Amino acid sequence: MEIVRKNYPEIPVTGSPHFHSVRAGNMLFLAGATAKMTDAEFGNIGEQTDVILKRIQHIMEAEGGTLDNVVKITNFVTDVSAEAKKQTQEIRVRYFGENLPASTRVQVAGLDLPHLKIEIEAIAVFRE
Amino acid sequence: MEIVRKNYPEIPVTGSPHFHSVRAGNMLFLAGATAKMTDAEFGNIGEQTDVILKRIQHIMEAEGGTLDNVVKITNFVTDVSAEAKKQTQEIRVRYFGENLPASTRVQVAGLDLPHLKIEIEAIAVFRE
Amino acid sequence: MEIVRKNYPEIPVTGSPHFHSVRAGNMLFLAGATAKMTDAEFGNIGEQTDVILKRIQHIMEAEGGTLDNVVKITNFVTDVSAEAKKQTQEIRVRYFGENLPASTRVQVAGLDLPHLKIEIEAIAVFRE
Repeated sequence: MEIVRKNYPEIPVTGSPHFHSVRAGNMLFLAGATAKMTDAEFGNIGEQTDVILKRIQHIMEAEGGTLDNVVKITNFVTDVSAEAKKQTQEIRVRYFGENLPASTRVQVAGLDLPHLKIEIEAIAVFRE
Repeated sequence: MEIVRKNYPEIPVTGSPHFHSVRAGNMLFLAGATAKMTDAEFGNIGEQTDVILKRIQHIMEAEGGTLDNVVKITNFVTDVSAEAKKQTQEIRVRYFGENLPASTRVQVAGLDLPHLKIEIEAIAVFRE
Repeated sequence: MEIVRKNYPEIPVTGSPHFHSVRAGNMLFLAGATAKMTDAEFGNIGEQTDVILKRIQHIMEAEGGTLDNVVKITNFVTDVSAEAKKQTQEIRVRYFGENLPASTRVQVAGLDLPHLKIEIEAIAVFRE
């Protein structure tokens, strides 16, 4: 079994020393992702969630899978208004459809930059 | 290898779009769980921990295992008093006995509702 | 497949009921670690990160691997100054070199003790 570390050319490298994903056999571990260095960086939490899930989808496809392979996501948020919750949930359903992952959502004290409202990390498993 | 998403009839569905558990082969990923929509919802952190660990135990048994299969838990808490710590630790030992998981506990800025004091997520592995 | 729970004699047992690591087949789950009960306990975030990564390295070697087997780390921090970020990143690179894990870093409201500035948990996979 190989361990394969990867950055994806379409995804910003933010400076923090890590890889976008690390694959070990049929498991894939995705680093926490924010909207930093994207058009949605200063957007609301819905716009930020959209760009992050699009990125996770991109990684899944680059790895030969789909969002259906994502088994767990963790959502670290700074905006916990009712509207923020509604937006993130709607966008999650738009991306995952019925194949939703197990999910955790907690309010943190802060993310990498003050205007970032959500960071999402994920674990995926591929059917071999 | 199949990916199986599941909700359990005995466990409240809180509205957030996700599944209670997602199983991929011999691994099981459990969504972060709180005491929301249970009798312990407005209870202290000990009562909330009790209902959450009972639920995780229920899921493990429904999946053909026991709490012994839980390898990792993450505890996101809002109450970090000495008494709160003591209560959660005692209840953890009551459920897991000597087969304790690797555990992380951090204080978050908030959970889904202001009166929720702890959210626990878990990863389990089944012996095939 | 066996599930093996372990504490390591060289690593402080802080009192919280859990194991330093739980191994399930080729996967290893490491509990969140802080500098508590080490010389770096009251040090800055760089010193605390150093002692934690040294400990993770120790566990990996005790398990027959290296830091190269670490696929994911989660950094829960309370100090998010630019200097803190720089220090933790430099130390991470010093330990992991080019074999960096997927990483998440979020600011939490607090850790186990007020002077603790970082807690790191990890998942590792061994090539069988």
